[in-house]
Amino acid sequence: MKKQPKKKKQGIYQIHGLNGCTNIINEKNLKIIRIDIMIGGNAEKKKWVNSLAKTTTYPVHRMPKDQFIKKYSGKRTQGIVVAFSGSIIQSLPSYKISKENECLLVIDNLEDPQNLGQIIRTAECANITGLLLPEHQSVQLTDAVLQVSQGAFIHLPFYRCGNLHHQLRALKKEGFWIIGVENSVKAISWYQLDYKRKLVLVMGSEGKGIRPVIMKACDDLITIPMQGKLNSLNVSSATSAILFERLRQLSHS
Amino acid sequence: MKKQPKKKKQGIYQIHGLNGCTNIINEKNLKIIRIDIMIGGNAEKKKWVNSLAKTTTYPVHRMPKDQFIKKYSGKRTQGIVVAFSGSIIQSLPSYKISKENECLLVIDNLEDPQNLGQIIRTAECANITGLLLPEHQSVQLTDAVLQVSQGAFIHLPFYRCGNLHHQLRALKKEGFWIIGVENSVKAISWYQLDYKRKLVLVMGSEGKGIRPVIMKACDDLITIPMQGKLNSLNVSSATSAILFERLRQLSHS
Repeated sequence: MKKQPKKKKQGIYQIHGLNGCTNIINEKNLKIIRIDIMIGGNAEKKKWVNSLAKTTTYPVHRMPKDQFIKKYSGKRTQGIVVAFSGSIIQSLPSYKISKENECLLVIDNLEDPQNLGQIIRTAECANITGLLLPEHQSVQLTDAVLQVSQGAFIHLPFYRCGNLHHQLRALKKEGFWIIGVENSVKAISWYQLDYKRKLVLVMGSEGKGIRPVIMKACDDLITIPMQGKLNSLNVSSATSAILFERLRQLSHS
Repeated sequence: MKKQPKKKKQGIYQIHGLNGCTNIINEKNLKIIRIDIMIGGNAEKKKWVNSLAKTTTYPVHRMPKDQFIKKYSGKRTQGIVVAFSGSIIQSLPSYKISKENECLLVIDNLEDPQNLGQIIRTAECANITGLLLPEHQSVQLTDAVLQVSQGAFIHLPFYRCGNLHHQLRALKKEGFWIIGVENSVKAISWYQLDYKRKLVLVMGSEGKGIRPVIMKACDDLITIPMQGKLNSLNVSSATSAILFERLRQLSHS
């Protein structure tokens, strides 16, 4: 049997570092379970962290350096780690009556947590409607993914999605265009697509691309023709090129 | 004294994994110093790797599993590691008489090897003229950077650059426009720039941005206005959005 990655549903997550932790502590929809602060660490020198430790609002634990380092070895924590829980993944609402230029993103076959984290960051900056997370995808929202996303996961809606193929058919009925994105295929260039409509963008993962069954469900394909000698644009870089082309077009309305 | 990172000039580099190693072994301008192949590993099962081991063209070392793993612990090698040398960084040629839409890229203040590796990949796919590497930049072309770039470093020209400020002034005299890219500053949007000319794109690193002295040397500034709640577009994602907007414009000539 294929080894399944650990899944977290209403799970407990853990983030380290000043930037990420600040975002989480300020977010009212998350429940802070524990804040570990290293005595004498970088974080403790910050005024807000120091005052945090003096209140009883949060479960703050000031830990001696050796103990803290032992607990979080190998992580660049800057002396602060926050454990929290929350319903990060929501059910997909209906967009049937929406007249907005909704944009849902899904990555088929994604395997690399680093890429997923980066895509979350880019997608949040580009203000899309949300990210679909197929249940059988091998990369889920793990601590590593959330860490790379640098707090962007708080503001980007994540939508649960069972069978992707079925979901795409349902979204078509709600007026979405399903657009597949593949490197180096015979297709129109990414900027030739009209982004001013309800769109689902299906990105293919590196190496594997989009599965044939999903490809068939697409209304159209777009591609980023490679200009160099390699054909290896990283999926998060490709996502960035496409989402910002969408914003460019939307700004010309 | 500030700790200086190790610098490699005409150095020896090391890359692991099937994709990266294939690119290097096929590249005539690099000198292959050593190819380590793990007996029974993934790489050895490939026909081309197996036939490589039977020739005397390359210094191939077939190593027992335990010895190989001990030597390369912590790396996802797929059973192959290549050490090589070569002059990867060149002197900047003169572009004075060039009538092409040259595009040189430089990242001021960059600190993250992962970002530099990704930028190299994106820049290669987007076919720019080359990447300037200021000598005093804290991230240099280390093994980690080359590894992330997945072989793209072979095809992207890297240019040595002493003092960045002086270099920019010299490039201005050769007809280049110096364009600074900063998040969330008062500037024109990235797609409002005319990319059909000789350009130096100066990206600001995350957190630190572009140094004031370099900012002053810029002829113009562009920005990617953030649409989300965070202001944290990753520098490699920003580079991708900009370099592909350039390609979009160039394709409309």
